Amino acid sequence: MSIVTANLAMSLDGCTAGPHQSREHPFGTGADALTAWMFETEQPGRGQDAQLLTDGLMGAGAAVPRTGPLEMRGGTTFTFVTGGLETALEQARKAAGERDVEIAGGASPVRQYLAAGLLDALVLHLVPVVLGAGERLFEGLAQLALTPVEVISSPTVTHLRYRTARRD
Amino acid sequence: MSIVTANLAMSLDGCTAGPHQSREHPFGTGADALTAWMFETEQPGRGQDAQLLTDGLMGAGAAVPRTGPLEMRGGTTFTFVTGGLETALEQARKAAGERDVEIAGGASPVRQYLAAGLLDALVLHLVPVVLGAGERLFEGLAQLALTPVEVISSPTVTHLRYRTARRD
Repeated sequence: MSIVTANLAMSLDGCTAGPHQSREHPFGTGADALTAWMFETEQPGRGQDAQLLTDGLMGAGAAVPRTGPLEMRGGTTFTFVTGGLETALEQARKAAGERDVEIAGGASPVRQYLAAGLLDALVLHLVPVVLGAGERLFEGLAQLALTPVEVISSPTVTHLRYRTARRD
Repeated sequence: MSIVTANLAMSLDGCTAGPHQSREHPFGTGADALTAWMFETEQPGRGQDAQLLTDGLMGAGAAVPRTGPLEMRGGTTFTFVTGGLETALEQARKAAGERDVEIAGGASPVRQYLAAGLLDALVLHLVPVVLGAGERLFEGLAQLALTPVEVISSPTVTHLRYRTARRD
Protein backbone atom coordinates (compact mmCIF):
# COMPACT_ATOMS: atom_id res chain seq x y z
CA MET A 1 0.00 0.00 0.00
CA SER A 2 1.44 3.34 -0.99
CA ILE A 3 1.87 6.06 1.63
CA VAL A 4 1.81 9.86 1.52
CA THR A 5 5.13 11.44 2.48
CA ALA A 6 6.77 14.87 2.66
CA ASN A 7 10.47 15.75 2.76
CA LEU A 8 11.48 19.18 4.06
CA ALA A 9 14.72 20.84 5.12
CA MET A 10 14.08 22.66 8.40
CA SER A 11 16.19 24.98 10.54
CA LEU A 12 16.50 24.62 14.33
CA ASP A 13 13.92 27.37 14.73
CA GLY A 14 11.41 25.52 12.57
CA CYS A 15 11.76 27.43 9.30
CA THR A 16 11.65 25.68 5.94
CA ALA A 17 12.40 28.87 4.00
CA GLY A 18 13.59 32.41 4.67
CA PRO A 19 11.43 35.50 4.07
CA HIS A 20 10.70 36.95 0.62
CA GLN A 21 10.00 33.68 -1.21
CA SER A 22 9.43 34.01 -4.95
CA ARG A 23 9.47 31.88 -8.06
CA GLU A 24 13.10 32.87 -8.58
CA HIS A 25 13.98 32.27 -4.92
CA PRO A 26 11.77 29.43 -3.68
CA PHE A 27 13.65 29.31 -0.37
CA GLY A 28 13.51 33.09 0.13
CA THR A 29 16.47 35.13 1.34
CA GLY A 30 18.99 34.40 4.10
CA ALA A 31 18.35 30.68 3.82
CA ASP A 32 21.47 29.54 1.98
CA ALA A 33 22.58 27.53 5.01
CA LEU A 34 19.30 25.65 4.88
CA THR A 35 19.85 24.37 1.37
CA ALA A 36 23.63 24.31 0.93
CA TRP A 37 23.85 20.60 1.88
CA MET A 38 21.56 19.71 -1.04
CA PHE A 39 23.88 21.19 -3.61
CA GLU A 40 27.40 21.30 -2.18
CA THR A 41 27.70 17.55 -2.40
CA GLU A 42 31.47 17.63 -2.84
CA GLN A 43 31.84 18.59 0.85
CA PRO A 44 32.86 15.66 3.08
CA GLY A 45 29.88 13.57 4.13
CA ARG A 46 27.36 15.58 2.15
CA GLY A 47 26.94 13.00 -0.58
CA GLN A 48 25.04 10.81 1.86
CA ASP A 49 22.79 13.69 2.90
CA ALA A 50 21.84 14.58 -0.65
CA GLN A 51 21.33 10.91 -1.49
CA LEU A 52 18.88 10.52 1.39
CA LEU A 53 16.87 13.44 0.06
CA THR A 54 16.97 12.07 -3.49
CA ASP A 55 15.89 8.63 -2.29
CA GLY A 56 12.99 10.16 -0.42
CA LEU A 57 11.84 12.19 -3.38
CA MET A 58 12.50 9.64 -6.10
CA GLY A 59 10.80 6.88 -4.16
CA ALA A 60 7.53 8.62 -4.82
CA GLY A 61 5.48 7.75 -7.87
CA ALA A 62 3.66 11.07 -7.91
CA ALA A 63 4.02 14.45 -6.26
CA VAL A 64 1.32 16.88 -5.24
CA PRO A 65 2.73 20.32 -6.02
CA ARG A 66 1.45 23.68 -4.94
CA THR A 67 -0.77 25.58 -7.33
CA GLY A 68 0.90 27.78 -9.91
CA PRO A 69 2.53 27.34 -13.29
CA LEU A 70 5.36 24.82 -13.60
CA GLU A 71 7.37 24.08 -16.71
CA MET A 72 7.21 20.65 -18.28
CA ARG A 73 10.42 18.67 -18.15
CA GLY A 74 11.43 15.49 -19.90
CA GLY A 75 9.54 12.50 -18.62
CA THR A 76 7.49 14.40 -16.07
CA THR A 77 3.88 15.41 -16.50
CA PHE A 78 2.38 18.14 -14.38
CA THR A 79 -1.35 17.94 -13.88
CA PHE A 80 -3.02 20.96 -12.35
CA VAL A 81 -5.73 20.12 -9.90
CA THR A 82 -7.95 22.84 -8.49
CA GLY A 83 -10.45 20.71 -6.59
CA GLY A 84 -8.65 20.90 -3.26
CA LEU A 85 -6.38 18.73 -1.16
CA GLU A 86 -8.31 15.50 -1.31
CA THR A 87 -8.96 15.60 -5.05
CA ALA A 88 -5.28 16.32 -5.71
CA LEU A 89 -4.25 13.46 -3.48
CA GLU A 90 -6.73 11.08 -5.09
CA GLN A 91 -5.37 11.81 -8.55
CA ALA A 92 -1.78 11.51 -7.33
CA ARG A 93 -2.58 8.14 -5.74
CA LYS A 94 -3.96 6.88 -9.03
CA ALA A 95 -0.90 8.12 -10.90
CA ALA A 96 1.48 6.62 -8.32
CA GLY A 97 -0.05 3.16 -8.31
CA GLU A 98 1.80 1.15 -5.68
CA ARG A 99 4.44 3.83 -5.22
CA ASP A 100 4.36 6.59 -2.61
CA VAL A 101 2.95 10.07 -3.07
CA GLU A 102 5.21 12.98 -2.10
CA ILE A 103 3.70 16.29 -1.02
CA ALA A 104 5.99 18.85 -2.64
CA GLY A 105 5.94 22.62 -2.80
CA GLY A 106 7.26 23.60 0.62
CA ALA A 107 5.72 24.23 4.00
CA SER A 108 2.29 25.48 2.96
CA PRO A 109 0.93 22.36 1.23
CA VAL A 110 2.63 20.06 3.75
CA ARG A 111 1.03 22.01 6.60
CA GLN A 112 -2.38 21.68 4.96
CA TYR A 113 -2.03 17.93 4.45
CA LEU A 114 -0.77 17.53 8.02
CA ALA A 115 -3.70 19.52 9.39
CA ALA A 116 -6.13 17.46 7.33
CA GLY A 117 -4.65 14.22 8.66
CA LEU A 118 -3.79 13.09 5.13
CA LEU A 119 -0.03 12.65 5.57
CA ASP A 120 1.53 9.32 6.63
CA ALA A 121 5.18 10.24 7.05
CA LEU A 122 7.08 13.49 7.52
CA VAL A 123 10.82 13.51 6.90
CA LEU A 124 12.58 16.54 8.38
CA HIS A 125 16.13 17.19 7.26
CA LEU A 126 17.16 19.19 10.33
CA VAL A 127 19.84 21.73 9.43
CA PRO A 128 21.81 23.06 12.44
CA VAL A 129 21.26 26.73 11.73
CA VAL A 130 18.90 29.39 13.03
CA LEU A 131 17.23 31.49 10.31
CA GLY A 132 15.48 33.94 12.65
CA ALA A 133 12.80 34.76 10.09
CA GLY A 134 10.91 32.94 7.37
CA GLU A 135 8.20 30.36 6.87
CA ARG A 136 7.57 28.23 9.94
CA LEU A 137 6.42 24.72 9.06
CA PHE A 138 4.32 24.05 12.13
CA GLU A 139 2.53 27.42 12.34
CA GLY A 140 -1.08 26.80 13.32
CA LEU A 141 -0.58 23.10 14.07
CA ALA A 142 -0.60 23.36 17.87
CA GLN A 143 -0.70 20.11 19.84
CA LEU A 144 0.20 18.01 16.81
CA ALA A 145 2.11 14.91 17.93
CA LEU A 146 4.34 12.76 15.75
CA THR A 147 6.11 9.45 16.32
CA PRO A 148 9.85 9.13 15.62
CA VAL A 149 10.47 6.21 13.27
CA GLU A 150 14.05 6.61 12.06
CA VAL A 151 16.97 8.94 12.64
CA ILE A 152 20.02 9.16 10.38
CA SER A 153 22.74 11.55 11.45
CA SER A 154 25.56 13.09 9.46
CA PRO A 155 28.19 15.74 10.19
CA THR A 156 25.94 18.41 8.71
CA VAL A 157 22.28 17.38 8.72
CA THR A 158 20.10 15.16 10.91
CA HIS A 159 17.45 13.23 8.99
CA LEU A 160 14.37 12.61 11.12
CA ARG A 161 11.55 10.41 9.88
CA TYR A 162 8.23 10.68 11.75
CA ARG A 163 4.97 8.80 11.45
CA THR A 164 1.92 11.02 11.69
CA ALA A 165 -1.48 10.22 13.14
CA ARG A 166 -3.73 9.97 10.09
CA ARG A 167 -7.34 10.96 10.47
CA ASP A 168 -8.90 9.27 7.44
CA MET B 1 39.36 21.01 30.59
CA SER B 2 35.77 21.49 31.66
CA ILE B 3 33.20 22.69 29.18
CA VAL B 4 30.02 24.75 29.43
CA THR B 5 26.89 22.82 28.47
CA ALA B 6 23.12 23.25 28.39
CA ASN B 7 20.40 20.58 28.23
CA LEU B 8 16.93 21.59 27.05
CA ALA B 9 13.79 19.77 25.98
CA MET B 10 12.50 21.41 22.80
CA SER B 11 9.36 20.93 20.70
CA LEU B 12 9.42 20.63 16.90
CA ASP B 13 8.44 24.29 16.68
CA GLY B 14 11.40 25.34 18.80
CA CYS B 15 9.67 25.92 22.14
CA THR B 16 11.29 24.96 25.43
CA ALA B 17 8.22 25.94 27.48
CA GLY B 18 4.59 26.83 26.92
CA PRO B 19 3.11 30.26 27.69
CA HIS B 20 2.34 31.52 31.23
CA GLN B 21 5.51 30.31 32.93
CA SER B 22 5.61 30.81 36.69
CA ARG B 23 7.47 29.52 39.73
CA GLU B 24 4.70 26.95 40.18
CA HIS B 25 4.68 26.03 36.47
CA PRO B 26 8.24 26.47 35.18
CA PHE B 27 7.27 24.93 31.83
CA GLY B 28 4.14 27.07 31.48
CA THR B 29 0.82 25.70 30.30
CA GLY B 30 0.04 23.29 27.46
CA ALA B 31 3.53 21.84 27.60
CA ASP B 32 2.90 18.52 29.32
CA ALA B 33 3.94 16.63 26.19
CA LEU B 34 7.28 18.42 26.32
CA THR B 35 8.17 17.14 29.76
CA ALA B 36 6.21 13.87 30.10
CA TRP B 37 9.20 11.79 29.02
CA MET B 38 11.24 13.14 31.94
CA PHE B 39 8.81 11.87 34.52
CA GLU B 40 6.84 8.98 33.03
CA THR B 41 9.86 6.74 33.08
CA GLU B 42 7.81 3.56 33.44
CA GLN B 43 6.73 3.90 29.79
CA PRO B 44 8.63 1.57 27.42
CA GLY B 45 11.94 3.05 26.35
CA ARG B 46 11.63 6.15 28.47
CA GLY B 47 14.08 5.02 31.09
CA GLN B 48 16.90 5.60 28.61
CA ASP B 49 15.61 9.06 27.75
CA ALA B 50 15.44 10.19 31.35
CA GLN B 51 18.85 8.64 32.04
CA LEU B 52 20.40 10.63 29.20
CA LEU B 53 19.03 13.83 30.71
CA THR B 54 20.21 12.87 34.19
CA ASP B 55 23.68 12.00 32.88
CA GLY B 56 23.87 15.38 31.14
CA LEU B 57 22.84 17.28 34.21
CA MET B 58 24.72 15.26 36.82
CA GLY B 59 27.91 15.32 34.80
CA ALA B 60 28.17 18.99 35.61
CA GLY B 61 30.09 20.14 38.65
CA ALA B 62 28.23 23.44 38.87
CA ALA B 63 25.14 25.00 37.35
CA VAL B 64 24.48 28.61 36.50
CA PRO B 65 20.82 29.18 37.39
CA ARG B 66 18.62 32.09 36.50
CA THR B 67 18.23 34.86 39.04
CA GLY B 68 15.53 34.50 41.68
CA PRO B 69 15.13 32.75 45.01
CA LEU B 70 15.80 29.04 45.13
CA GLU B 71 15.48 26.81 48.17
CA MET B 72 18.49 25.03 49.53
CA ARG B 73 18.46 21.28 49.22
CA GLY B 74 20.67 18.66 50.78
CA GLY B 75 24.19 18.74 49.44
CA THR B 76 23.62 21.61 47.03
CA THR B 77 24.70 25.17 47.58
CA PHE B 78 23.12 28.01 45.63
CA THR B 79 25.24 31.09 45.21
CA PHE B 80 23.50 34.15 43.83
CA VAL B 81 25.59 36.12 41.42
CA THR B 82 24.42 39.49 40.18
CA GLY B 83 27.48 40.56 38.24
CA GLY B 84 26.29 39.27 34.87
CA LEU B 85 26.90 36.29 32.63
CA GLU B 86 30.67 36.21 32.72
CA THR B 87 31.01 36.66 36.45
CA ALA B 88 28.47 33.91 37.07
CA LEU B 89 30.30 31.60 34.71
CA GLU B 90 33.66 32.37 36.26
CA GLN B 91 32.40 31.46 39.73
CA ALA B 92 30.73 28.31 38.41
CA ARG B 93 33.96 27.27 36.70
CA LYS B 94 35.86 27.64 39.97
CA ALA B 95 33.20 25.64 41.82
CA ALA B 96 33.17 22.92 39.15
CA GLY B 97 36.90 22.40 39.00
CA GLU B 98 37.56 19.85 36.26
CA ARG B 99 33.87 19.05 35.86
CA ASP B 100 31.52 20.69 33.38
CA VAL B 101 29.34 23.72 33.99
CA GLU B 102 25.65 23.37 33.10
CA ILE B 103 23.63 26.45 32.20
CA ALA B 104 20.27 25.81 33.86
CA GLY B 105 17.10 27.86 34.18
CA GLY B 106 15.49 27.37 30.79
CA ALA B 107 15.71 29.14 27.47
CA SER B 108 16.49 32.67 28.61
CA PRO B 109 19.91 32.11 30.24
CA VAL B 110 20.88 29.55 27.60
CA ARG B 111 20.02 32.05 24.86
CA GLN B 112 22.13 34.69 26.56
CA TYR B 113 25.14 32.41 26.91
CA LEU B 114 24.73 31.26 23.28
CA ALA B 115 24.55 34.85 22.07
CA ALA B 116 27.65 35.75 24.10
CA GLY B 117 29.57 32.82 22.60
CA LEU B 118 30.15 31.36 26.07
CA LEU B 119 28.53 27.97 25.53
CA ASP B 120 30.50 24.92 24.32
CA ALA B 121 27.77 22.33 23.86
CA LEU B 122 24.00 22.47 23.47
CA VAL B 123 22.02 19.27 24.01
CA LEU B 124 18.50 19.44 22.62
CA HIS B 125 16.08 16.72 23.67
CA LEU B 126 13.76 17.03 20.67
CA VAL B 127 10.22 16.06 21.60
CA PRO B 128 7.98 15.23 18.60
CA VAL B 129 5.16 17.60 19.47
CA VAL B 130 4.13 21.07 18.33
CA LEU B 131 3.30 23.48 21.16
CA GLY B 132 2.11 26.35 18.97
CA ALA B 133 2.89 28.95 21.62
CA GLY B 134 5.49 29.48 24.29
CA GLU B 135 9.13 30.40 24.77
CA ARG B 136 11.19 29.92 21.64
CA LEU B 137 14.79 29.01 22.41
CA PHE B 138 16.41 30.58 19.36
CA GLU B 139 14.49 33.88 19.32
CA GLY B 140 16.91 36.64 18.40
CA LEU B 141 19.77 34.30 17.49
CA ALA B 142 19.47 34.61 13.69
CA GLN B 143 22.23 33.05 11.61
CA LEU B 144 23.60 31.06 14.52
CA ALA B 145 25.20 27.85 13.23
CA LEU B 146 25.90 24.74 15.28
CA THR B 147 27.75 21.49 14.54
CA PRO B 148 26.07 18.13 15.14
CA VAL B 149 28.26 15.96 17.35
CA GLU B 150 26.05 13.09 18.49
CA VAL B 151 22.50 11.87 17.94
CA ILE B 152 20.76 9.31 20.14
CA SER B 153 17.26 8.31 19.10
CA SER B 154 14.52 6.65 21.08
CA PRO B 155 10.85 5.85 20.40
CA THR B 156 9.81 9.12 22.05
CA VAL B 157 12.63 11.68 22.08
CA THR B 158 15.61 12.44 19.85
CA HIS B 159 18.69 13.59 21.75
CA LEU B 160 20.81 15.95 19.67
CA ARG B 161 24.21 17.14 20.87
CA TYR B 162 25.69 20.17 19.11
CA ARG B 163 29.02 21.93 19.39
CA THR B 164 28.74 25.70 19.31
CA ALA B 165 31.17 28.22 17.90
CA ARG B 166 32.65 29.87 20.98
CA ARG B 167 33.69 33.46 20.72
CA ASP B 168 35.99 33.77 23.74
